[in-house]
Amino acid sequence: MDNAGYCSESFHSLQSGTSDEDMVEIAGATLDFSSTDDVPPLDRDCSSGYSAHGGGGGVLNGGTKLMDLLDEPVPGVGTYEDFNTIDWVREKSKDRDRHREISSKSKESTWALLHSISDAFSGWLLMLLIGLMSGALAGGIDISAHWMTDLKEGVCLNGFWFNHEHCCWTSNETTFQERDSCPQWKSWAELIMGTTEGAFAYIVNYLMYICWALLFSFLAVSLVRAFAPYACGSGIPEIKTILSGFIIRGARGLLLWQHLCHLFTKYRKNEAKRREVLSAAAAVGVSVAFGAPIGGVLFSLEEVSYYFPLKTLWRSFFAALVAAFTLRSINPFGNSRLVLFYVEFHSPWHLLELVPFILLGIFGGLWGAFFIRANIAWCRLRKTTRLGHYPVLEVLVVTAVTAVLAFPNDYTRTSTSELISELFNDCSLLDSSKLCDYVNANASKSSNELPDRLAGHNVYTAMWQLALALVFKMLITVVTFGMKVPSGLFIPSMAVGAIAGRLLGVGMEQLAFHHHDWDIFKGWCSPGADCITPGLYAMVGAAACLGGVTRMTVSLVVIMFELTGGLEYIVPLMAAAMTSKWVADALGREGIYEAHIRLNGYPFLEAKEEFSHKTLAMDVMRPRRSDPPLSVLTQDSLTVEDVETLIAETSYSGFPVVVSHESQRLVGFVLRRDLIISIENARMRQDGIVSTSRIFFTEYTPPQPPSSPSPLKLRGIMDLSPFTVTDHTAMEIVVDIFRKLGLRQCLVTHNGRLLGIITKKDILKHMAQMANRDPDSILFN
Amino acid sequence: MDNAGYCSESFHSLQSGTSDEDMVEIAGATLDFSSTDDVPPLDRDCSSGYSAHGGGGGVLNGGTKLMDLLDEPVPGVGTYEDFNTIDWVREKSKDRDRHREISSKSKESTWALLHSISDAFSGWLLMLLIGLMSGALAGGIDISAHWMTDLKEGVCLNGFWFNHEHCCWTSNETTFQERDSCPQWKSWAELIMGTTEGAFAYIVNYLMYICWALLFSFLAVSLVRAFAPYACGSGIPEIKTILSGFIIRGARGLLLWQHLCHLFTKYRKNEAKRREVLSAAAAVGVSVAFGAPIGGVLFSLEEVSYYFPLKTLWRSFFAALVAAFTLRSINPFGNSRLVLFYVEFHSPWHLLELVPFILLGIFGGLWGAFFIRANIAWCRLRKTTRLGHYPVLEVLVVTAVTAVLAFPNDYTRTSTSELISELFNDCSLLDSSKLCDYVNANASKSSNELPDRLAGHNVYTAMWQLALALVFKMLITVVTFGMKVPSGLFIPSMAVGAIAGRLLGVGMEQLAFHHHDWDIFKGWCSPGADCITPGLYAMVGAAACLGGVTRMTVSLVVIMFELTGGLEYIVPLMAAAMTSKWVADALGREGIYEAHIRLNGYPFLEAKEEFSHKTLAMDVMRPRRSDPPLSVLTQDSLTVEDVETLIAETSYSGFPVVVSHESQRLVGFVLRRDLIISIENARMRQDGIVSTSRIFFTEYTPPQPPSSPSPLKLRGIMDLSPFTVTDHTAMEIVVDIFRKLGLRQCLVTHNGRLLGIITKKDILKHMAQMANRDPDSILFN
Repeated sequence: MDNAGYCSESFHSLQSGTSDEDMVEIAGATLDFSSTDDVPPLDRDCSSGYSAHGGGGGVLNGGTKLMDLLDEPVPGVGTYEDFNTIDWVREKSKDRDRHREISSKSKESTWALLHSISDAFSGWLLMLLIGLMSGALAGGIDISAHWMTDLKEGVCLNGFWFNHEHCCWTSNETTFQERDSCPQWKSWAELIMGTTEGAFAYIVNYLMYICWALLFSFLAVSLVRAFAPYACGSGIPEIKTILSGFIIRGARGLLLWQHLCHLFTKYRKNEAKRREVLSAAAAVGVSVAFGAPIGGVLFSLEEVSYYFPLKTLWRSFFAALVAAFTLRSINPFGNSRLVLFYVEFHSPWHLLELVPFILLGIFGGLWGAFFIRANIAWCRLRKTTRLGHYPVLEVLVVTAVTAVLAFPNDYTRTSTSELISELFNDCSLLDSSKLCDYVNANASKSSNELPDRLAGHNVYTAMWQLALALVFKMLITVVTFGMKVPSGLFIPSMAVGAIAGRLLGVGMEQLAFHHHDWDIFKGWCSPGADCITPGLYAMVGAAACLGGVTRMTVSLVVIMFELTGGLEYIVPLMAAAMTSKWVADALGREGIYEAHIRLNGYPFLEAKEEFSHKTLAMDVMRPRRSDPPLSVLTQDSLTVEDVETLIAETSYSGFPVVVSHESQRLVGFVLRRDLIISIENARMRQDGIVSTSRIFFTEYTPPQPPSSPSPLKLRGIMDLSPFTVTDHTAMEIVVDIFRKLGLRQCLVTHNGRLLGIITKKDILKHMAQMANRDPDSILFN
Repeated sequence: MDNAGYCSESFHSLQSGTSDEDMVEIAGATLDFSSTDDVPPLDRDCSSGYSAHGGGGGVLNGGTKLMDLLDEPVPGVGTYEDFNTIDWVREKSKDRDRHREISSKSKESTWALLHSISDAFSGWLLMLLIGLMSGALAGGIDISAHWMTDLKEGVCLNGFWFNHEHCCWTSNETTFQERDSCPQWKSWAELIMGTTEGAFAYIVNYLMYICWALLFSFLAVSLVRAFAPYACGSGIPEIKTILSGFIIRGARGLLLWQHLCHLFTKYRKNEAKRREVLSAAAAVGVSVAFGAPIGGVLFSLEEVSYYFPLKTLWRSFFAALVAAFTLRSINPFGNSRLVLFYVEFHSPWHLLELVPFILLGIFGGLWGAFFIRANIAWCRLRKTTRLGHYPVLEVLVVTAVTAVLAFPNDYTRTSTSELISELFNDCSLLDSSKLCDYVNANASKSSNELPDRLAGHNVYTAMWQLALALVFKMLITVVTFGMKVPSGLFIPSMAVGAIAGRLLGVGMEQLAFHHHDWDIFKGWCSPGADCITPGLYAMVGAAACLGGVTRMTVSLVVIMFELTGGLEYIVPLMAAAMTSKWVADALGREGIYEAHIRLNGYPFLEAKEEFSHKTLAMDVMRPRRSDPPLSVLTQDSLTVEDVETLIAETSYSGFPVVVSHESQRLVGFVLRRDLIISIENARMRQDGIVSTSRIFFTEYTPPQPPSSPSPLKLRGIMDLSPFTVTDHTAMEIVVDIFRKLGLRQCLVTHNGRLLGIITKKDILKHMAQMANRDPDSILFN
């Protein structure tokens, strides 16, 4: 237990000693990678390095040029090591080469044609599989979560596998309102002692509640430790980082999708294509978790994804459709609805109500800013103190405290989803909730009309309990988000907002009831009619709080109205989301996910924040003025030994190739990893390659004197089109290029001569420095 | 009338003689541009050229360096001519420079601080104005369109300014169903002849209908000719092109927004910032036109915009919120709803119904593909024959034909929105529509239950009329889209789909009624219950047809459920949208907007289509192998006369600057326009600048011999960070760079030496060539 580090620590420990430059681990990793499980199978046919750069020659040409004696390219060239950043441009051209090769071959035989067709449809097929599996998984999770929540309070005599609602359905066709009197469902006290009365029965129920909570949380934390050792919290910060191009092979939570990807060559071999699939999977995940297909797609677009072309949008859309369809077929809520909290309000809102809605927006913004600061402070405490060494214990202690505090309050004892559902719903005459205990002044009215909304005694009790629940939820969420269990953020945030909104809504309602002669209520709230819908306030509050924490706008509103069906209330929802975003942004620019990314030091280049400093490329590039000159290779004057010495002496992850040291005119760029693999391979398998062999990056190798050892031609592994900027380029443009093209590094020139290099990490460090943060907080490459 | 060319022809006539290279007009344009109305006011303080490139010096520094004697930069440097493409990178850095300057000044005085604050909020303020104005405009348009539609059939005696519905409200509190019997509303025959009976009355009504239709269309076409001379059809192709960076100053339809932009310095001076505003305005336009705030924002994101950063998303969202709020306050439909076609269905859909829904998707895809081909063929006919010379006559003839054909059929006589609304709605017992004439077999049933759905005689009549209306709508839409009136595409396409869907829906319903013992209907369609909702089929059909034409997915579904409130039917809508997109894409890759852009030869680099050819930058760049070498400037060896000769002899819109002709090492890039303006200005205002003056692009000017004329320093107008790629760069990467960064041109190097140049137009021509299209179909620069 005490050996398990927290997610970020586990990463850190893998990187022993960070250097200023991009550092790669050499020993071991280059040779034994094919035997480990986490590395994708070798690329045997088409990943020999850069594509379409070989002057008209494709990849295979490059490969044959590279080694005259071998008819297959060097395995491993063009792959990545763990905890490194991928080069999007390179990955994308690799895929387009593959595609072109398959299409050109497709004319040769029927088999090749079939291969080409299946390749073209593999993306959609993969989406179909992802959709089906996500839908089925979500259905299963919905059903079992429901069952487990109810198990904390009691058990069904007809079969322990029924939840409270199904138990009562089976026994008798009772309505929802009579579920408390269903005879087949026994609370634990009833089952053990035969009674539900008295303090002792209460204590039995209380203890059983705590025991089950502890058992379930122990199960959860064990599952996480087994299958997703790096996961903490919602995992969205990690997904964001992975999608931006960072490689975390240990993220086993994604293993399911990664295995699916391995079914198809196109995705097995390409880190960029795989990220497209993950973007779509993230969309589907949110879609099915909330029953909001479009909202999920937009969430992935607005919040999670880094590179989201229209094609991915369409595929995500398709996968979300399949998942929604699957979920609809499973029908976990038993009401033919996908929606978690379906509401139906009947009264329109009044324009003046925008004032309380905006107030809720301000509350949401304040809550978001507070939550982010408090949660980050708590997580930092966990990272820096001994607390972080006992993750399982922490989970169990927090569970115990939560269970002890939650049971006595009706509104925290049930699951949070049920609480939100109750808060969103409008009262009708049949509703048995305490929140709907209104004094029915006009009992003689026809049953279709709602009573006057004078609050009864129970409403005031409920208000107190809700206020306590609000404080409880606010504090507990700060602690739970980021623990070693996949505790989300959406539902707790929405609960906080829904409670606050309902409180304000009931307040407004009573104000209007008691003072319907006030000018603001006149002509709108006539006596006897209800003019204010407290459930709507709860919905708006939930949107505001979720928005304050995540800073979503469009996707938030879409999720909210997909969740509730409250399409008529789009203006209130938008107003609250916008206000909450403004208020929260004014108090701190970062949303919760960005804050966690920064806390963990992931190399993530934020696309939202504008780079507004006036520095130039020359201020950021390496080498600095006082540094030794850039380590470069020359295109035709180095021997194998020279290169091996350079590799041993430096730790750079790549080297520019120039015409000559004097001219410093740039020819291309070679990655360290590719260079090491190619030289080792050539030494092992190619005749006549010795330490004194000359290495040529040129297109044509000049004839060698007969006595000299045979030359090593390495043009095939060289990137002939490295990105360059001039030293006078403004950093804002450089940052823009890195973001939009997904670069890993960029070379800097002055008047056509090579001057230096800028890597993604250099940019992140520079940005940290400009924002007066510690540049060494950026870890990994 | 006959002088008015069609939209694209008007553009063509402006460009007299296209050359192979990027061509600019020199004479006149450079001097008199300040006197024309369409060019934004001069940049007097901060647009002297490139920003942050001056080696640490800002724009003003560059300005003072540029001319020692003048304390302000040359007016006009850094602006664009009409029908040219902007450079996004340059525009964005100009704006960031402005921003930095204002923020750094803000510490100096309270006034500067206020200026800085107002500048920071000007974007949001502009969005507020746009939202308010769009909402108000849309409200006005909704009300007057309603009124004008009704005026074609009759008039209100209480006041001619009431429409049919309001007229009857005023006279009596009748329900919608009794509107036909409202005494205050007189049809034209009734008013003129005192009767509605008989053939003659019918003819009077018929003639009045045609007259009003002609009058309204004449009004429309006159308004268009006065305010939007280039507009044709929906204008979305033009907006797409403008948003991608092309300058069409004559697009006066956008003048309103352009004037709004002029209120704020930030937007007045910057083409890129102005396009951000236009993106948002496009979002708001769709939002208010359909009462779909989120759908509009997504439409702008998925379909219209080229560059849509998250900041623009939030601003569009805010503007759409304000507009929706304004529209809600105006309440044009009188029902507190934003929604155009609100529906409420009560029965859930069955999984088996997905089969007809997918059939509707296929129909929508086929219709989309047919429509695009037919419409483009018609528009090409209009462009190439004399038809195009009589736009007003064409509009009037089409109107007359439409009116003559439309009047006899009940389903084409009313406005298309009303038709769609009727088709979407489910029948209830009260509904007086012919479509709802079901034989009530179980009349003894309680009134809450729906009758058996055996179709009566009127339903069959309605089916025939609808089938005729379908054919009519399909043919007429092909002709009307692209005419000289702003005729949209959304409503007609939706109408086509809604008719087809309703027909299929009624068919399914009768099938289920007559054969409810079939296996597929068993357990789902019990006799006496209605299991099929024809209105839902109409809704799904509408989505499918709109999707087939525009190829939208996510935004389509969001618009559909914002239009109808039918959130429960998200899976049917998604399935239809996806099928329709697949089918239509299989028959032709382009959506209607892209097809029109290509028809008009606009320089639009499509972001959706992947470039899949294997060419390299060296295959596309100019000069080609047989061409004369690239025209370049050297940094310190040319005289003013040399440069003037070069400008006179070539028509390139810019010149690379190199160290020397021998080395060809790249220093920077100068735009022709900036060069001309700077030299003219220096000759006029700067002492000692004569034809033999040396021009220096270097940072330090070497001391000149005393006898020689004073040197002209032009480093300030040079772009010190031109984009470069190597000659071996794959074109797919180059295209990606152009798209994502919004470049206008890119220089090509080999081993550090300058080789050639690639412009956006070169890329478009190359793409046309690779697709076996005529490369000369790409017009403009």
